[in-house]
Amino acid sequence: MIIEKINEPNDLKKLTIEELNNLACEMRQFIIKKVNTTGGHLGPNLGIVETTIAMHYVFNSPEDKIIYDVSHQCYPHKILTGRKECFTNCDEYFKYSGYTSPEESCHDLFKVGHTSTSVSLALGVAKARDLKGDKGNVIALIGDGSLSGGEAYEGFNNASCLNGNLIIVVNDNDMSIAENQGGLYQNLKLLRETNGVAELNFFKSLGFDYLYADDGNNIQKMIDVFKKVKDSNHPIVVHVKTQKGHGLKCAEINKEMFHWILPNTLDDNNEQIQNNGNVPENYNSITTDFILNKAKDDKTVVAITPATPGAYGFNHEFREKLGENKQYIDVGIAEEHAIAYGSALAKSGAKPFLAVLSSFIQRTYDQLSQDLCLNNSPITLLIYWGAITNADATHLGIFDIPLMSNIPNLIYLAPTNKEEYQAMLEYAYKQTAHPLAIRVPFGEMVSSGQVDNTDYSILNKYKVTNNGEKVAIIGLGNFYHLGERVAKNLKEKHNINPTVINPKFITGVDVELLESLNANHNLVITLEDGVIDGGFGEKITRFYGNSNMKVLNYGAKKEFTDRVPLDELYKRYRLTPLQIVEDILKYI
Amino acid sequence: MIIEKINEPNDLKKLTIEELNNLACEMRQFIIKKVNTTGGHLGPNLGIVETTIAMHYVFNSPEDKIIYDVSHQCYPHKILTGRKECFTNCDEYFKYSGYTSPEESCHDLFKVGHTSTSVSLALGVAKARDLKGDKGNVIALIGDGSLSGGEAYEGFNNASCLNGNLIIVVNDNDMSIAENQGGLYQNLKLLRETNGVAELNFFKSLGFDYLYADDGNNIQKMIDVFKKVKDSNHPIVVHVKTQKGHGLKCAEINKEMFHWILPNTLDDNNEQIQNNGNVPENYNSITTDFILNKAKDDKTVVAITPATPGAYGFNHEFREKLGENKQYIDVGIAEEHAIAYGSALAKSGAKPFLAVLSSFIQRTYDQLSQDLCLNNSPITLLIYWGAITNADATHLGIFDIPLMSNIPNLIYLAPTNKEEYQAMLEYAYKQTAHPLAIRVPFGEMVSSGQVDNTDYSILNKYKVTNNGEKVAIIGLGNFYHLGERVAKNLKEKHNINPTVINPKFITGVDVELLESLNANHNLVITLEDGVIDGGFGEKITRFYGNSNMKVLNYGAKKEFTDRVPLDELYKRYRLTPLQIVEDILKYI
Repeated sequence: MIIEKINEPNDLKKLTIEELNNLACEMRQFIIKKVNTTGGHLGPNLGIVETTIAMHYVFNSPEDKIIYDVSHQCYPHKILTGRKECFTNCDEYFKYSGYTSPEESCHDLFKVGHTSTSVSLALGVAKARDLKGDKGNVIALIGDGSLSGGEAYEGFNNASCLNGNLIIVVNDNDMSIAENQGGLYQNLKLLRETNGVAELNFFKSLGFDYLYADDGNNIQKMIDVFKKVKDSNHPIVVHVKTQKGHGLKCAEINKEMFHWILPNTLDDNNEQIQNNGNVPENYNSITTDFILNKAKDDKTVVAITPATPGAYGFNHEFREKLGENKQYIDVGIAEEHAIAYGSALAKSGAKPFLAVLSSFIQRTYDQLSQDLCLNNSPITLLIYWGAITNADATHLGIFDIPLMSNIPNLIYLAPTNKEEYQAMLEYAYKQTAHPLAIRVPFGEMVSSGQVDNTDYSILNKYKVTNNGEKVAIIGLGNFYHLGERVAKNLKEKHNINPTVINPKFITGVDVELLESLNANHNLVITLEDGVIDGGFGEKITRFYGNSNMKVLNYGAKKEFTDRVPLDELYKRYRLTPLQIVEDILKYI
Repeated sequence: MIIEKINEPNDLKKLTIEELNNLACEMRQFIIKKVNTTGGHLGPNLGIVETTIAMHYVFNSPEDKIIYDVSHQCYPHKILTGRKECFTNCDEYFKYSGYTSPEESCHDLFKVGHTSTSVSLALGVAKARDLKGDKGNVIALIGDGSLSGGEAYEGFNNASCLNGNLIIVVNDNDMSIAENQGGLYQNLKLLRETNGVAELNFFKSLGFDYLYADDGNNIQKMIDVFKKVKDSNHPIVVHVKTQKGHGLKCAEINKEMFHWILPNTLDDNNEQIQNNGNVPENYNSITTDFILNKAKDDKTVVAITPATPGAYGFNHEFREKLGENKQYIDVGIAEEHAIAYGSALAKSGAKPFLAVLSSFIQRTYDQLSQDLCLNNSPITLLIYWGAITNADATHLGIFDIPLMSNIPNLIYLAPTNKEEYQAMLEYAYKQTAHPLAIRVPFGEMVSSGQVDNTDYSILNKYKVTNNGEKVAIIGLGNFYHLGERVAKNLKEKHNINPTVINPKFITGVDVELLESLNANHNLVITLEDGVIDGGFGEKITRFYGNSNMKVLNYGAKKEFTDRVPLDELYKRYRLTPLQIVEDILKYI
């Protein structure tokens, strides 16, 4: 196999075009097999194989610097830059991250997993090169989907003014994670259809030189293109048409489903395995059922997503029922716009439910503060995947609580089971007093079997689920159940009957309840499924700062973890019931 | 005077063009006089007088909804919408805010003071109108400067796809706060020079219908333009050329200086009062002197600003010495790009000093987290105006500590005087281990007169400035001096000798020192010039959670305050030395 000869990019330069083409086929098969085993980004990587080979054939990484956007398309690059064993050897499948990482290779310049950053980063690399008097090409590789993000635009607007080499490769596969959204994509379509010669040209309007490449899945053509722009003395956009999922029939057809796949999506013939479609009730289905139900009778109900509908079950059936661009709105990768837009909808009397992942709400602090909370618009934010996990460092869900809960006016709720979540959704739908966010429970659905009739308009009212003494356990959201396990252990093993509290409100302190604990408790522990710093528990500790109550805060340490197994993290953070009990026994 | 007849927008419709023109002159004079008395945004408001009159003449606010971007240009709107007394009556000069505010008037839809939000907000308003089956025009008014912000772009990209009325008025006065930055502005220039007919058109490339208006300072012409687009059944951009500072000679010439002016900038003849130019040494000059000094010998030193150079003394002399677009970079209103760009510069071995206001660092949480801190790039961030102030709700400087200090890897320093600041700048310049931020002291410069030789590479080492007992006062940054005043009072009035601590490090806890306080203290108080929630003090409280130490945290409450006098805020937050002493005496 050709791939055996490839240990670094330079090895490509010794191959013929035929060998390069064969190499592409081999790489494609390895990528399919690996991703079908581990899960991961499939479609974007299959589409960029040939362009990546041509890029490394023409340029000289790492002297020439290639900066990937979001890294959804970096697998071929990894194969060609000394990391092929991660694809060819199933024992090594988990050795490297799914994103670019300087720790892995000198060919990766940045750790990247959020979109729309490559042009700004590349401009910085190019500018530093010029300041230092160095040489070499700087190349940003960005997908068309990432172009909808404001940070990318800010980068483009500035990059065109660089007085030096900068090559921006736009990998246009006519798809974001889901469909592209926005007027820009009509212009990209026009450019594809006119082979790049249309006068109306987004990139040129931002001041760029521009070159169109009509077949990014043709190595020879792409080599010719890259040779033309190599050593350019000015910024240039190379607009490359590729096919997402290229070479895998089902991925070419169903581009969204094959953007990222779970393990064992394909059978041995690379055909999609059909599942029976019966998914048990879960927090996603609770959400979509609720929205569909309300939307039927209330035409002002709108579901909004910034480009990640799949993550919360906003599937095609859901979208069709709501009516795309009517009561279902995908704004593209544009989280900032999503918040401002949702704020204005809510302020104008509509009922937006804006779903977003914990990791991506990070992109909206100022919009949450200024566009939303300062204007006190009664939006409903649904924050998914907020939890300590074994995720990549780029997709941690532990920072949403400090990020959001220290902004004035926002009410942030943490349900612990299905019924509470439903009651909070109902409250969110009806209320018009506050911007409201719900941290959708993460993991297996828990049901109490009892309808929750709590009046959530009474803010910051915690729920005592067991009246005990000595120690009070405040378990927030996902970690309420951890609190129950700790309580069980204390009861059964140590004859201690702790008070157990489900706070429900992340953004406020139940003063009356906390005061009352002073009577017969001397220890309070807080449990939160996120970073401790700036979070929920510290507010409880502050409350007791002037008292004799001792308080211990549990949660994640302030650090970026990278694919650390969850049980290891729990142990590191002393989040196992036994560790917590051990600590408690020291203080009571 | 015509203005006497104007109490609401409808009153305009009864006037002749001649009367409208006279009204514009009257409004202009009132704006100049008011702003020259109170300080405020001058140039942008003078430029938009005629367009605002025409807009309110043609449209019917509040049925037609006008949404302002950043509100730098809302004064004429305020005059025409029932708030003229704020300009005509000097006793009422401070009655209304300098920004749009729904609390003031039904003609203001949102409280806005950060840029680039109007298109997203307008799209939400228009969409809600359509969902509810309502009628009316929705108009966004955005300046050319605001177009450099990513949120604006995200809004434009989505707005063009609305299937209904939306009118985006681009007020193009060929200036941001300072000069515009980026390739886009070449396209705006081309459009102005071709009277809007050039094929290359940024707005059209995003899918918009487009109309060019060559003289936004001509009421008759603008009435005709707005009549053309009124009741448009689709989104359209009206690109209006105006003159910033129109009608005030010195503001027309020196556009940047007259963007926002201090009181008494003009004499009675509306001529600029020349000051003697001798500004005493201050934290701005410390910064610029330091950067210029380093940049002389190190060509990799770069000063970066996202469009607000004036705030930190990056004046024309400074810029020229560094070389515009060489070692001085204004990225335009593009804070996200600024952080990513700076991260890449730092990662590539350059020495970026990125200056930004506390209120605007809010626009960069995800870039701080992902582009910068996850990649551990050794940038230097200089955070200005971080303090409790009497500012507008849109420009509070109290949130930077919770925003930044809960992100892993960042080192955030709080100097308390000139010499510490200089030592920290020196450390920042030399170190390559961390992303580093300095909270530039706010207010009058304090000098110790003694060179600071602290080795800041020893992280989280607090400085004890007085060894005492019973109570320890930890005064962070600006509030170290408040801590000293509290200590003085305790000593002189109550014969208590408190320990006084200058922590210097916002992002870490000095474990050894805090432990040692347990020996002979039973109370620690923390003072920080920002919101308490999620901030510095809560970490100290958490540290002592399992001990007998009592801890009181002082700082701002989690709330948006709006032009509340500082002494009132200090009293509200119990931040006067007497209040703090009163509290302390309760616990020791």
